[in-house]
Amino acid sequence: MTDRDLRPIGHVESPLTDPGDAPKQGSEGGPGAWLVIEPRLLDALDGIEPGDRVVVITWLHLARRDVLQVHPRDDARNPLRGVFSTRSADRPNPIGLHEVEVLAIEGGRVLVSPLEAVDGTPILDVKPVI
Amino acid sequence: MTDRDLRPIGHVESPLTDPGDAPKQGSEGGPGAWLVIEPRLLDALDGIEPGDRVVVITWLHLARRDVLQVHPRDDARNPLRGVFSTRSADRPNPIGLHEVEVLAIEGGRVLVSPLEAVDGTPILDVKPVI
Repeated sequence: MTDRDLRPIGHVESPLTDPGDAPKQGSEGGPGAWLVIEPRLLDALDGIEPGDRVVVITWLHLARRDVLQVHPRDDARNPLRGVFSTRSADRPNPIGLHEVEVLAIEGGRVLVSPLEAVDGTPILDVKPVI
Repeated sequence: MTDRDLRPIGHVESPLTDPGDAPKQGSEGGPGAWLVIEPRLLDALDGIEPGDRVVVITWLHLARRDVLQVHPRDDARNPLRGVFSTRSADRPNPIGLHEVEVLAIEGGRVLVSPLEAVDGTPILDVKPVI
């Protein structure tokens, strides 16, 4: 069996530094951000072009892994729900999915928008939107 | 920083046992399958109902992690492309994304369709489709 250790393929460079500033959903807006890909993995970027829509998969490194239920959108008026029925960052494996548009590629750096992940967030994978 | 070890939240129970039998994309069809969730995490399922559309995130444990380019759809006539521009299972972090419909919930077992993951595939997360 393949081992299960995550090896980030790169990290996010973004003006967002405080998770509290990140919009709750990408569709509510978010800044452009750079995906900085590990130099040894650049061959894996081949075929990605400006205008493509891709899913960026991140590891939400500031999240809590021991939370099973949350008030959706951090609003205590919303009843508690299981995290698997919400997009809460706090969850057993804090994986983030971000559907973005590729705006530019410069060597191993890919400019995308909108991306609501904070600066330094590890990137796990990039996939085309089907 | 949150540690990066993956802890499966459950596993797939499916009639698919050979990765060669799995369709290349979920949208091309695939059988129903059960998500068997860890008993200690059942509170995290609260709020998921039959009829919901969710993204199941898996760890494609049979995949290779040292592959950076592939012939799309395993067809040698297709020119090599970087894995980040394809849905190949072989990639540095072999994470699978599967958009499915919830058909039934029985305790800690969730029946979904279509799911093209082989029997025993570890599940990392479940999120609602936005």
